[in-house]
Order: sequence, then structure tokens, then C-alpha cells
Amino acid sequence: MKNRNFKMVLQYEGTRYQGWQKQESTDNTIQGKIEKLLSKMCGETVEIQGSGRTDAGVHALGQVMNAHLNTDLSAEEIMEYMNRYLPEDIGVVEICEVSDRFHSRLNAKGKTYRYQVINSRIPHVFERRYAYVFPEKLDVEKMRKAAEILCGTHDFAAFTSAKKSKKSTVRTIESIIIEKSGDMITFTFTGDGFLFHMVRILMGTLLLVGTCATIPEDVEKILSSKNRSEAGPLVPAHGLTLVEVRY
Amino acid sequence: MKNRNFKMVLQYEGTRYQGWQKQESTDNTIQGKIEKLLSKMCGETVEIQGSGRTDAGVHALGQVMNAHLNTDLSAEEIMEYMNRYLPEDIGVVEICEVSDRFHSRLNAKGKTYRYQVINSRIPHVFERRYAYVFPEKLDVEKMRKAAEILCGTHDFAAFTSAKKSKKSTVRTIESIIIEKSGDMITFTFTGDGFLFHMVRILMGTLLLVGTCATIPEDVEKILSSKNRSEAGPLVPAHGLTLVEVRY
Repeated sequence: MKNRNFKMVLQYEGTRYQGWQKQESTDNTIQGKIEKLLSKMCGETVEIQGSGRTDAGVHALGQVMNAHLNTDLSAEEIMEYMNRYLPEDIGVVEICEVSDRFHSRLNAKGKTYRYQVINSRIPHVFERRYAYVFPEKLDVEKMRKAAEILCGTHDFAAFTSAKKSKKSTVRTIESIIIEKSGDMITFTFTGDGFLFHMVRILMGTLLLVGTCATIPEDVEKILSSKNRSEAGPLVPAHGLTLVEVRY
Repeated sequence: MKNRNFKMVLQYEGTRYQGWQKQESTDNTIQGKIEKLLSKMCGETVEIQGSGRTDAGVHALGQVMNAHLNTDLSAEEIMEYMNRYLPEDIGVVEICEVSDRFHSRLNAKGKTYRYQVINSRIPHVFERRYAYVFPEKLDVEKMRKAAEILCGTHDFAAFTSAKKSKKSTVRTIESIIIEKSGDMITFTFTGDGFLFHMVRILMGTLLLVGTCATIPEDVEKILSSKNRSEAGPLVPAHGLTLVEVRY
């Protein structure tokens, strides 16, 4: 039996799960579900590596993972097996065999996240699981100005819930694209990496700017404060989707 | 208290319901849920009128209903009340007061339905509730040819599950648009009205043509046979969405 390294692209609807990362206290994580199934398939304990954690309730269109598997099955057979036995809110949409050294987290060069806001009191039945209802009037142009200030390389210490540590909180945001279509506003964040809760706190801050509670130029002060309490609130998880991981 | 007639546009995700029409045997219908709520709001029994029934599992982006209500509430207040207390998979997206004589079924001039097919074995986690997985290879051009033959005014007796009755089974289909985007094929049917199960049997027939089990020209024979057993199978309800009712 060969030991081979497989890279997989996953979709999941995060609604029912306690997030990506496996936990002792619950079975109900994406990582937990996939490891359990692959362990059954291989007849031995399998550990998988995600490109990063997603929080409870966050969705993925293109999460990436890799796993070293002792199996003679082809990539296609593994994908078929997984899609047959995984719950219907988790799916493997791509699989390929990769070099032994490929590591989905360490080799990731960038990520794209999307946050959706329903800017209306009118219900959106089909988007309700994937978008945050925020009915207050939003000034898109002001949010775009603030987004421009946030792009680039900065210390995002003010935009994370992580406890202070020696790890760098400097990240580069390549782009924040804000598109409005009817009542739906879509925010697309692309960067080299995002800190714990970073996208959701950036969103909370952009929404403050959109409602004119904060002016776009204040975003610069928030950045330089490096103080979490200066930034906006953490918005709900269900509006957030990990769209793509770049290698 | 004035008696006023209100027209409402509804969205619903049909997954959890036994269809539109209220039934003695179950509480679990869209009409039942809405009538119960409006009866509570008005303090008397309210009956509503839908533009037509949708089957168990079928969704709506733009179902239309009307109701004569004894209330002093404004249209906006009624909509707010309903959206506060309806389950989150049913929403009122438009409301207006209309003439006493407006009847959502009798005045309907046309309807648009959409049927979505996932033409792949690869899972589509976010579309799974609203699209039918049909992985066999489909020839879109052949389906378009057959769709062209189906358009126009015909006796669609072969394309309904309704028992024979004296009611006319002649209908006019204005257009059937077939669009492919990645693995997703969307079929959009617009016509003056559709018989019981008609869109789903048209779809079953188009899929037979798409797999080359039937040639496009056979559709003419099926039409003229007026015989249900000549047409294709009834496809699952969950791929179907009532998009719009025209007045």
C-alpha cells in the first residue's frame, strides 16, 4: 500500500457545525466528520490538514485540505467514496494527488473571503443562511473609501480577537471589492492571510462607516491604535464564506 | 373597520412543506401557515387565494396571493407583522392594496417557472435544495430543439398527471429558455398557465431528449398522442421554483 498525499477542495454549509477544527467536546466539526470517514476508509487513524480554521457557522465554497493516506484507491475513487458517505452539507469538489511536501496551511499564498449583507427589512428566503440582515441605510461609497485605506500591508492587531502573542499581526490585504445588487451587498476580501475573526471585525467596522457612525478616515486611527476596542463589532458568522485558497 | 383586498408577493422554500394548498390532514402547508397567521392578526377566520397551487417541495420566488382583510393596519404594517411571525422559510416581499375585484388566480395572465439541473456527480452543496442532480451527459442543443417544438399553443394532455376531465388541457407556452453555466442547467418556462405536474413532466421529457433516449422530433408525436404514458417521467419537485406570476 502506498502512502500518498491528496489535496482536496471542499464546499460546506457551516450552519450545523461547530466550525472546522476538531474538538474533544463535540463530534460536530467539519474536520471531525472528514477524519472519521477517511479513518474508516483507510482502516487506520487519519489526520487531515485544513488551509485554516473556519469558525462555527462560516461556510466554504473552496476550503482546501490535504491528507496523507495509505490507500490503493484512485483519487476519483476516494472522492466518490467521500461524497457518498459525507453529510449532504459537506462535499468534495476537487481532488488530486500532490507531492509529499504539499501542506495546505503552510503553502497557502492567499485567501479570498466573501461577506454578504442583506440591506433591507424585506426577507430574502433563499439567501437567509448565507447573508447577514442589516436593514440600516448604508453608504456604499463611504465604505469603499474606508476599504481602500484598509488595503495594503498593515498591522491588523485592532482587527482580531486573538489574545496578544508574539506572532505577527501584520497582514496584506490585496483588495476589498464592494458590490451592490438590489438589496444584497457583497464584500470580497482577498489577502495573504487573515487573523482570527479579522474579516468579521473588518466588516463590523465597514458597516459603522456605512451608517456614518464612523468616518472613513477614522479607519487609519483604528489601524494605528492596534487596539481591538477601537474597531467595530464582530458581525455574525453566517454571512461569511471562504471562497478560495490560493497556492 | 374597512374590508380591503391586499395583493402580496411571497417567497418560500418548499422543502419543509406539504405544498401550497391547505389540507385537513396536515398543518404543514404554506396556505395553512399564512391563513392561520392572518386569522390571528384579524381576530376572525381569513381565507387567502393563491395564484395557483405549488406541489410539496416546490419553491417560490414570486408566488402571488390575495386576501380580503378586515383591518385598519396599513399594508406596510401587515407585511411587517407577517414577516415577524411567519417561519423564516416563508416571506412576504411585496404588498399592496388592490381593487376589491382583484383575484390572484382568475386574473393571472401568465407564469414563469424555473427548473434547475446539476449535470454532474460533483456535489453542489449550496444549490442542493433547489436543483435536481442528474449526472448523465446531456445534449443541450437537442433539448433546445425539443423545447422549440413544445412552445406555442398545444393540447398538453400528455404532459399532466391530472385525471381526464372536461376542463381544457390546451395551454400556450411562450418560451422555454435553456441556459448552461458550469455544471448547472437552468430551464425557464413561461406560459399562460401550466397544468398539474406539467412543468415537471415537460422536464422529464426534455431530459430524455438530452440523453438521446428520445429524438427532439418525437416530442410532436407525444403531444398529438395526448397520452401521459408517452411523455417522460415526472422529475423531483425540489428542482422547481415558481419565479413570477404576470397580471
